[in-house]
Amino acid sequence: MKKELKSFYKDKNILITGGLGFIGSNLAIKLVEFGSKVTVMDSLIPDFGGNFFNIAPVKDQLIVNISDMRDQHSIERLVEGKNIIFNLSGQVSHEDGMEDPLVDLQINAVSQVYLLEALRKINPSAKVIYAGTRQIYGKIEKTPVDETHLVRPTDTNGISKFAGEWYHILYNQVYGIPTCSLRLTNTFGPRQLMKHSRQGFIPYFIRLALDNQEIRIFGDGNQIRDMMFVDDAVNAFLLAGENIRSNGNYYNLGGIKPISLLDFANLIVKIVDKGSIKLVPFPKEREKIDIGSYIGDYSKINKELGWSPKVTIEEGLRKTVSYYLENKKYYW
Amino acid sequence: MKKELKSFYKDKNILITGGLGFIGSNLAIKLVEFGSKVTVMDSLIPDFGGNFFNIAPVKDQLIVNISDMRDQHSIERLVEGKNIIFNLSGQVSHEDGMEDPLVDLQINAVSQVYLLEALRKINPSAKVIYAGTRQIYGKIEKTPVDETHLVRPTDTNGISKFAGEWYHILYNQVYGIPTCSLRLTNTFGPRQLMKHSRQGFIPYFIRLALDNQEIRIFGDGNQIRDMMFVDDAVNAFLLAGENIRSNGNYYNLGGIKPISLLDFANLIVKIVDKGSIKLVPFPKEREKIDIGSYIGDYSKINKELGWSPKVTIEEGLRKTVSYYLENKKYYW
Repeated sequence: MKKELKSFYKDKNILITGGLGFIGSNLAIKLVEFGSKVTVMDSLIPDFGGNFFNIAPVKDQLIVNISDMRDQHSIERLVEGKNIIFNLSGQVSHEDGMEDPLVDLQINAVSQVYLLEALRKINPSAKVIYAGTRQIYGKIEKTPVDETHLVRPTDTNGISKFAGEWYHILYNQVYGIPTCSLRLTNTFGPRQLMKHSRQGFIPYFIRLALDNQEIRIFGDGNQIRDMMFVDDAVNAFLLAGENIRSNGNYYNLGGIKPISLLDFANLIVKIVDKGSIKLVPFPKEREKIDIGSYIGDYSKINKELGWSPKVTIEEGLRKTVSYYLENKKYYW
Repeated sequence: MKKELKSFYKDKNILITGGLGFIGSNLAIKLVEFGSKVTVMDSLIPDFGGNFFNIAPVKDQLIVNISDMRDQHSIERLVEGKNIIFNLSGQVSHEDGMEDPLVDLQINAVSQVYLLEALRKINPSAKVIYAGTRQIYGKIEKTPVDETHLVRPTDTNGISKFAGEWYHILYNQVYGIPTCSLRLTNTFGPRQLMKHSRQGFIPYFIRLALDNQEIRIFGDGNQIRDMMFVDDAVNAFLLAGENIRSNGNYYNLGGIKPISLLDFANLIVKIVDKGSIKLVPFPKEREKIDIGSYIGDYSKINKELGWSPKVTIEEGLRKTVSYYLENKKYYW
């Protein structure tokens, strides 16, 4: 963590959309620690990831505002007077997006225009860091994937998140609003939704192991993924929010070391010391939207903002498992 | 025109969304000539381009259904029993899209999901040809532009049209609906909206010349564009609709010969034998969303579907001018 980050964020007025969710709440806790004046906004849609317990350590030191990004009125009031907006609200489940593409599009694109229009009218100097996703690339042509890879989404979520991201870039180009997008890869850590498997396999694998159940991996388990611990993601948001060089830019994030799904599951089972692993064939509908192996090339953000991932998968997993062992009742 | 096209389209049930608009109506007239059973659907939103006079030559030989793509109920009934859907509805003005990004997104993306969901539920074997746009590429890196050029839209319209296109591609990949997108470049000809300049400069330049007024060109006039006569665009739609090879594919279209805006304006003034030309500086807001020079590489559709543009700019312009001289009162 850069030392000057703390002094930069001290007393800043911050809005975190999706702030009761996984990354948003970890960011909120860090910002409270830095002395920021934090408002978290969350719709608490069941199954989306928002969880009041996520902000328990700082609940008396920030403002919680329950509202949905699709509410065009509340967002106009919430952006007033903010210096920095960490925009992490979103529908992030690939399966849920395929099931209801209209809700996915309303939240991930239409609502983003509400936010940006509100900023254009009311607070155009606020910095906005958008939580983008590597899902927009779709089927990967070659790894590692840098920002010049073609965008060919293979699910509704990839389409809507690309639109949401480019509205941010556009509002920088045309209206000068200082926006930036971070294209997240698989992120894990404390405060992630653990109730179902539709927001990614990592938390669900951890849950299954903790429940001493069988982890099922689709295919041969050789699919490669980047894994990023949440503290590294939080650090990327903080660096992007502080640095004007990020304005109008988009960056891939990435993990320290790519790992196969099978090796990752084995590591979980080893650390938790429970659970088992089974390889099963791909469900047909799931195979169609699978992107294959993904490794992110994060050299652009490394060069421009000085970010790199710091936490090893094993260290991150130990912290994660320990958190859920202690707080299981709030997540199961 | 391929000879077998006529027999392929005879007796086919066709829906044309945006069918009272520029390209849609030209397509409708051709399909009626081929013996298709044509329904045109149009919202007739003022200033969007729908015009009852456009289908005057065939008005008793097709069905006109006035409804908006944002009406999720009507689209479910209109797709029933159709063999082919030419999907040309859309908000196509870059300026209007910047002015009202939400309407642009509702029409160009949300409504496209309504259509595709209706097809998935009710008529998944219908072929759909979507009117895409070269606007999605944004600022051009190098010409000619083929389909591997990065997508980095510079206006809201480029974002929403990319989303609309990729929902079509996705519904092919996941649900097997035979969809295809044609990425149109500047198209001109009879039946285009002539009332204002917000849907492209070509018709407006022609109008100004016919009204013996001054044509104002932004910048130095050296910006290069592809120009495509509407009959060539219609032929591309017909070829894509007939050929299963287009399923799940997207293709750039292009003109016979690129031309600078200044040369093009000079040609108009020569053919109309009225009007004048003035070079003026770029308006600030307009410059920000300008894409620079564009030349489309249409070799993919040429190779796969046998399409190439046939009508020279001069021949196309003569036909266009002659049409508006005869029918001015319906377009001015």
